[in-house]
Amino acid sequence: MSKTELELAQACARLMWANDRASKEMGLELGEVTPGEACVHLTVGPDMLNGHGVCHGGLIFAMADTAFAFACNSLNRQATAMHCSISFIEKVSAGARLTAHASGRARYGRNGIFDVTVTDDQGAKIAEFRGYSRTIGGEWVSES
Amino acid sequence: MSKTELELAQACARLMWANDRASKEMGLELGEVTPGEACVHLTVGPDMLNGHGVCHGGLIFAMADTAFAFACNSLNRQATAMHCSISFIEKVSAGARLTAHASGRARYGRNGIFDVTVTDDQGAKIAEFRGYSRTIGGEWVSES
Amino acid sequence: MSKTELELAQACARLMWANDRASKEMGLELGEVTPGEACVHLTVGPDMLNGHGVCHGGLIFAMADTAFAFACNSLNRQATAMHCSISFIEKVSAGARLTAHASGRARYGRNGIFDVTVTDDQGAKIAEFRGYSRTIGGEWVSES
Amino acid sequence: MSKTELELAQACARLMWANDRASKEMGLELGEVTPGEACVHLTVGPDMLNGHGVCHGGLIFAMADTAFAFACNSLNRQATAMHCSISFIEKVSAGARLTAHASGRARYGRNGIFDVTVTDDQGAKIAEFRGYSRTIGGEWVSES
Repeated sequence: MSKTELELAQACARLMWANDRASKEMGLELGEVTPGEACVHLTVGPDMLNGHGVCHGGLIFAMADTAFAFACNSLNRQATAMHCSISFIEKVSAGARLTAHASGRARYGRNGIFDVTVTDDQGAKIAEFRGYSRTIGGEWVSES
Repeated sequence: MSKTELELAQACARLMWANDRASKEMGLELGEVTPGEACVHLTVGPDMLNGHGVCHGGLIFAMADTAFAFACNSLNRQATAMHCSISFIEKVSAGARLTAHASGRARYGRNGIFDVTVTDDQGAKIAEFRGYSRTIGGEWVSES
Repeated sequence: MSKTELELAQACARLMWANDRASKEMGLELGEVTPGEACVHLTVGPDMLNGHGVCHGGLIFAMADTAFAFACNSLNRQATAMHCSISFIEKVSAGARLTAHASGRARYGRNGIFDVTVTDDQGAKIAEFRGYSRTIGGEWVSES
Repeated sequence: MSKTELELAQACARLMWANDRASKEMGLELGEVTPGEACVHLTVGPDMLNGHGVCHGGLIFAMADTAFAFACNSLNRQATAMHCSISFIEKVSAGARLTAHASGRARYGRNGIFDVTVTDDQGAKIAEFRGYSRTIGGEWVSES
């Protein structure tokens, strides 16, 4: 029996997450994944602060990039990031609980454009990210 | 006696680096800092790989972003990142030794544009990053 | 009697458009403007084609940028573009009727982020644009 | 007899320019083209001003984009723009004489990254542009 799109999205996510040591090392937590969308969570610890005493932009990027990666691979076509941009809106202190929510904006040929918004647990916007993906051939799971 | 520009740049870098727990946790190493330029190094460990088995883009961004931060703060004006973009050129495997080199492209008003190129130890280009900074008022060290 | 937000948005648009010789020279037509949103239309003529025989990307950018400008000035705070990015999705031939629709994504301090989608009259996506604005002080019309 | 790289670059440019009605309509002038580089000039007329009374950003983008297009096609591989970003540095008044100079930053697979700097005739920076190209198959001139 063929899988539903939602089952496929979640199977892709499980396979990717199982191998993703970097995201786990950085403290990222995978949230809900549905076809074309994904969430990633992060609780900012004191070891995530930079020389200005606020959360390192690299970690905010990493959580947005990871949400983007799970969203753009959720249709069972292996895809990688070609280009990303991020705008930092609000500084983040230790203790904050952040969520990155990625959703698709456009698909054309092998290309995809995804928007990711990072918010804190009061719903304040922390960053806006846009990712450009390209499928590279290959599936995560057999669809037959 | 007033400090030279190079002494100032290095004093700013020491102060920022001393507090930058996040960069150290991610395995980043601060290289040379001169007025308007900075280098950051990273040796890619197996715990830095993502679900595709290659170095997580978040870490490549983080090293470029850190080089950008040290470059844009090297003139003793406190500055933060407003916006960044990155293009991923080449996949990176565990064991690679990477260098991010940041240099200034334009300064106008409180704004700066910096280019960061990430290369491996054979000189192959891994990523091209562009960062947009804004000074926020305040110095790192007293210039008097 | 104080003006409604919609009346203000349309008054700002009328003042800007009256002076905007460039947009008119390029064949752009101003569509609906509401608080935080604006539309611009363009019918692609044979004199708008580039060396590949398709609509020049500069004109597609110009229409998106103009929609962005009218959207980010629609709240009666004078604002200018700091930075813009555009992805070209589909080639456009002579005769096509295009619409650029700009809407706000985030506002923080003096900064704004706006998304602009350019579509043709079949609704196909032609380009995705993101603009970063900054208010520069000054109003278009007196609010008293 | 095979052509030199410079002859090829200039032959590609002549073919592209001959068909490029849009650039000519916008008042752009093609300057020097060499392998991987190109210049475009523009004298800003009163009909190029926007609702703020300064040169329309769409025209500044268009001249940068055109320089980028001639640079990324100068190696006799047909290429188109995938994505572009531009930062506006300085306002431009009527009468200014602008130059956009495009040069290659990276080439990988079918992708290219080009930087374009727009300056006025005092050498002041007006805008910084970065363009991402992709070859689409096909040559401008036969190399045999």
